[in-house]
Amino acid sequence: MRQVGWVLALLLALIAPAAQAQGEDGYDLWLRYRLANAYPREAYDQQFREVIHQGSSATLDAATDELRRASHRIMGHPVPLIDAPVGDGSLVIGTPANSPIIAALHLPLESLGTQGYLIRSLTIDGHRVNVIAANSDIGVLYGAFRFIRQLQTGQPITALDISDAPKLQLRILDHWDNPTRYVERGYAGQSLWDWQTLPGYTNPRYTDYARADASIGVNGVVLNNVNANVVMLTPQWLVKARALADIFRPWGIKVYLSAKFSAPMELGGLKTNDPLDPQVAAWWKAKADEIYALIPDFGGFLVKANSEGQPGPQDYHRTHADGANMLADALAPHGGIVMWRAFVYASENPDDRAKQAYNDFQPLDGKFRPNVLVQIKNGPIDFQPREPFHPLFGAMPHTPEMIEVQLSKEYLGFATHLAYLGTMWSEVLGSETGRGGTVADVIETPVAPGAPTGMAGAANAGTDRNWTGSQFNQANWYAFGRLAWDPKVSAGDIARDWAKMTWGTDPAVVEPVVAMMMRSREAVVDYMTPLGLVHQMATGTHYGPGPWVSDLARPEWNPHYYSKADASGIGFDRTATGSSAIGQYAPKLRESFANLRKTDEKLLLYFHHVPWDYRTKSGRTLWDELVIHYDQGVESVRQMQANWAALKGKIDERRWQEVAQFLAIQLQEAIWWRDASIAYFQSVSKLPLPAGHAAPAHDLDWYKAISNPFAPGDTKPGL
Amino acid sequence: MRQVGWVLALLLALIAPAAQAQGEDGYDLWLRYRLANAYPREAYDQQFREVIHQGSSATLDAATDELRRASHRIMGHPVPLIDAPVGDGSLVIGTPANSPIIAALHLPLESLGTQGYLIRSLTIDGHRVNVIAANSDIGVLYGAFRFIRQLQTGQPITALDISDAPKLQLRILDHWDNPTRYVERGYAGQSLWDWQTLPGYTNPRYTDYARADASIGVNGVVLNNVNANVVMLTPQWLVKARALADIFRPWGIKVYLSAKFSAPMELGGLKTNDPLDPQVAAWWKAKADEIYALIPDFGGFLVKANSEGQPGPQDYHRTHADGANMLADALAPHGGIVMWRAFVYASENPDDRAKQAYNDFQPLDGKFRPNVLVQIKNGPIDFQPREPFHPLFGAMPHTPEMIEVQLSKEYLGFATHLAYLGTMWSEVLGSETGRGGTVADVIETPVAPGAPTGMAGAANAGTDRNWTGSQFNQANWYAFGRLAWDPKVSAGDIARDWAKMTWGTDPAVVEPVVAMMMRSREAVVDYMTPLGLVHQMATGTHYGPGPWVSDLARPEWNPHYYSKADASGIGFDRTATGSSAIGQYAPKLRESFANLRKTDEKLLLYFHHVPWDYRTKSGRTLWDELVIHYDQGVESVRQMQANWAALKGKIDERRWQEVAQFLAIQLQEAIWWRDASIAYFQSVSKLPLPAGHAAPAHDLDWYKAISNPFAPGDTKPGL
Repeated sequence: MRQVGWVLALLLALIAPAAQAQGEDGYDLWLRYRLANAYPREAYDQQFREVIHQGSSATLDAATDELRRASHRIMGHPVPLIDAPVGDGSLVIGTPANSPIIAALHLPLESLGTQGYLIRSLTIDGHRVNVIAANSDIGVLYGAFRFIRQLQTGQPITALDISDAPKLQLRILDHWDNPTRYVERGYAGQSLWDWQTLPGYTNPRYTDYARADASIGVNGVVLNNVNANVVMLTPQWLVKARALADIFRPWGIKVYLSAKFSAPMELGGLKTNDPLDPQVAAWWKAKADEIYALIPDFGGFLVKANSEGQPGPQDYHRTHADGANMLADALAPHGGIVMWRAFVYASENPDDRAKQAYNDFQPLDGKFRPNVLVQIKNGPIDFQPREPFHPLFGAMPHTPEMIEVQLSKEYLGFATHLAYLGTMWSEVLGSETGRGGTVADVIETPVAPGAPTGMAGAANAGTDRNWTGSQFNQANWYAFGRLAWDPKVSAGDIARDWAKMTWGTDPAVVEPVVAMMMRSREAVVDYMTPLGLVHQMATGTHYGPGPWVSDLARPEWNPHYYSKADASGIGFDRTATGSSAIGQYAPKLRESFANLRKTDEKLLLYFHHVPWDYRTKSGRTLWDELVIHYDQGVESVRQMQANWAALKGKIDERRWQEVAQFLAIQLQEAIWWRDASIAYFQSVSKLPLPAGHAAPAHDLDWYKAISNPFAPGDTKPGL
Repeated sequence: MRQVGWVLALLLALIAPAAQAQGEDGYDLWLRYRLANAYPREAYDQQFREVIHQGSSATLDAATDELRRASHRIMGHPVPLIDAPVGDGSLVIGTPANSPIIAALHLPLESLGTQGYLIRSLTIDGHRVNVIAANSDIGVLYGAFRFIRQLQTGQPITALDISDAPKLQLRILDHWDNPTRYVERGYAGQSLWDWQTLPGYTNPRYTDYARADASIGVNGVVLNNVNANVVMLTPQWLVKARALADIFRPWGIKVYLSAKFSAPMELGGLKTNDPLDPQVAAWWKAKADEIYALIPDFGGFLVKANSEGQPGPQDYHRTHADGANMLADALAPHGGIVMWRAFVYASENPDDRAKQAYNDFQPLDGKFRPNVLVQIKNGPIDFQPREPFHPLFGAMPHTPEMIEVQLSKEYLGFATHLAYLGTMWSEVLGSETGRGGTVADVIETPVAPGAPTGMAGAANAGTDRNWTGSQFNQANWYAFGRLAWDPKVSAGDIARDWAKMTWGTDPAVVEPVVAMMMRSREAVVDYMTPLGLVHQMATGTHYGPGPWVSDLARPEWNPHYYSKADASGIGFDRTATGSSAIGQYAPKLRESFANLRKTDEKLLLYFHHVPWDYRTKSGRTLWDELVIHYDQGVESVRQMQANWAALKGKIDERRWQEVAQFLAIQLQEAIWWRDASIAYFQSVSKLPLPAGHAAPAHDLDWYKAISNPFAPGDTKPGL
């Protein structure tokens, strides 16, 4: 076996250039499994000779298949699969239930729960072996991916003692995919789900998607857009969902659906959707029974109700709790859950948009069924480059709260801007709520024994060959999984692991790549919305700058609603002299938010309307500080370009070229953002630019005239 | 060199399984370039040792790159590239202008024109060499692909004497792609053109697309939908078109755009689009100048006017000639052309839809500028599984007529039905017009010296990994190119070449595959629209059967308009007793079309309304014959499945599985078509099914209740 392995390894090494005639295109994601360098490989050949796999299940088979796939490509030969006996270099995987060998080891598995795993190097019958043990097959699968990560990142596989279990139960990707395969706020091609050929054709890509999710611990997928179409709930379409559920199941992934609240009338022909109407409740119960007959482990419903035109219980003067509980009762007998989104605001409501979700939901604390989670966006506005954490976190102590983040960068430059979101999500998760710890503490802590916990991400995967629209956007998919597994993992460690698995383990590559990633989100904040500004993007598409827009019907559609830029200054006063939104935060935070001097300048204009001549901590005026931040953003992109240019030749040419071209687009658009924003705000502040800072390339009207009606992802694309 | 080659060949052979870990997915199309079997490979190693390439141009470099790519993968090593001297096994490529070696050979190149090539085995200075010679670099590129075909199909490369030149000047693919990347009547994912990242990001796939087109002689691409959006003509979008033109240029491909006739008002702010208005003419002239400043070899405009709601000259009581000539005059100074579509019909016009194009255009013969071609669909209706050739062919002796066919199978089961269209197109091209030969003769023969000739195909390529939505749809792209190059090539020969290049040269694979292809289109005709029926598809999506639809506002939207099924019989009477459409054909054809007995039964119900009890040539009644044809169609799909099942293990597993799953979908839908059609027509004929033919699985109402609002490709998809 070893010799054959060596021959194959030699061949793989020699053949690599030919095999990559077309060049790497990123399809492999972080599961790239490239041949390891000679040094660790020689050790791996000694220490990882075979997989001992007792018992059998679809999930255990998935784990062994992945171990063989990984060993084949990383070590040059697939390790053999046997069921006994152990020898030096055996990898024993399984659970006490299906593996007598593991049962005999009496390992401390109690603390691992149903999804954790333990990886340990130990001796069996005098043989040095590694063991991946868990209480469940899915735990074994997660452990296998963890073991593979050691190989991918060139780490030793001796003296292993790794024990890990997810901090959150539900780690879910929300696909905003329509039945037409159009993806709302999607920038990576079409929906991965080819509804027309499902269920008959099961594209192998569905399995590769599941592998990627499982490798980072994602255990749930909402198949369709929260702005839902009821067709998803018809028998004709449920069999398509079933086909995907069958493919995802071995990888520990449950399928969920976004449910449109008006389905009883649209599909059932009822006269109402009133959640307190017995016929409506009965219709949903029957629908739930129908779904579970097809998909026994169906996860449940995600609901966007009474928000942005979606129907909901308030149409019948019922509360969000009334609506959620009615659906929860239909799912409860089957073990399903409801994820009810708190992202609500109404144009009729004159109050600060940032306050409306809290006002609607906080009073409902304790009124939800145990199988309901309230799904809260990371911030009170809408996935901005930077905004404070959402005041609802910690404010509903009797209600399961899950956080929703967005991978697809609707407000951060779409696919082409390099923006690593691990740092943004860590910033939010690490925010002290003043109500039972950080946001991470809040979502990790069950509100009652056995109460659900979770994190959701609006997915960024589509049919683009690289899955996510750019090579670096893959890092946001990866980081979501890692943070949903453990919200307190460092964004830097995640970036480093991803960089090694995606670009290679050479430190001369890894460190510059990590440096680019770690500064990237702040760069976007600086050239789009510095100092606490939000929502300055062009209305509708959210592509490019539109700070001057102030004439649209609904106030919150206007970027000017958020900047409040006028002769007196700029920023949204959310203190007592303004909307009093700070009153929704814990008392201990209000005081600092209320105080101009104590407010973190990163959020200055989110909480305060500040005079143009206000002296910032740097001693510069606010106006000068603002201009300098825009230029810092552009400069950071130039520095990312310099980092990347230095990597030419160290990275496969095709992926290098793609990233280089994307960075050039990002620089162009960063300058567009900088120039257009300064041109507009200068027309308001009437102040000169600080010395050494160039005037915009064009006048304000030139920037106002730019229109991009066909930018991707808009909710109502022209055809 | 040879030894290195052998080592690499050995490695490639040994490594093949590992390299294809994910399995082949069809991305390589017919340019698959798999390692040749030992036998021809040993010969190739002797007879193809190096490429001698003198002079240089982007197109010559493309040719040599392709020869090296092909040799690398087919022979196991890339042949070296040198500029002299010749030796045994040299391949000398070039033109007399750029290659002294070729100039010295004084080869008979006159007859090859500007796009043809000559491939000859001969001796130079006592060395046995092959030569690819042409009058132009593009001719050399076409010759290189022809030479590579020898290698791909395992043919000898000695004693070569191949001389070929295209029979048609313009070989153009029309992409019905919208600025949103939605493809109208597209079933293979999104548009290949990622407008959002163009021109900054030039996806390598654009080059692979150009390689595929060039390999079959396609020399023009219309980038956008004939139902055109004016945004394509804005400066912001023209630079995106330029980026594609720059990528396509070395491959001999010109870029064209679909022009919306209302652009002067929509973009130019003029008060009219009247083609005789000097300001309108001036606007188009300025627009043409603007385009050519960006794209010096821009091909010209494709126009859909006064058809299906598109604006056109008739809005101003001008003729199609007035409109086409105005645009032609704007393009003429730059050498551009206008392709003006004859696909026109109006709901206000009570006359037989099949007659309207002829009535509008035939009287305009001789009134068009020399750089205008009238683009005529293969049949008078609309890309049906079968319809007669269009009566305009040969009826405009003073006007360049080009044929338009559709690759994307809008009416032939979309992507999932295996239907090789080479046989359909050959049937049309081989049809005797009674006016100067066959349709092929008509389109091949310039109406004046130097007058343009051409063939257009509505493209079927999109972002799907396999390009065309299914593995077998690739054959229709390939066949289009081959027939546009030479409309008289046999569909069987094309199928055989494609099968060898796509599935392997083993006759045990090639012959069953070719057999499937050659029967496939007739199978679709039989289970969808037998005996000359047309347009029985569900309205709007054209997905699935809808023969009962008869209640829509516009008569020609109703399938019943085309079947005229009633108690007395079925079929559209186009004889003197009916719409007299046969009067548009040449006198010598009218007589047979008018005579029930002389009409080819394949077109029986297209020309005649026939009693249910009419005795067909088989002696069976029309009703029995109809039912038997539906069942023949289903049976043919079962036989294709049997052919394919026997190939398991002979074909790479991933592609085999994909085709097997698609055939299962096709069988299911063929049965759906058969059952729904019989259920409906039996409700009209009131006749019993012939003995041994099963009743439909469900009653008519069940089939009527089926709705597929989100079937792909519709012009107005729900979002």
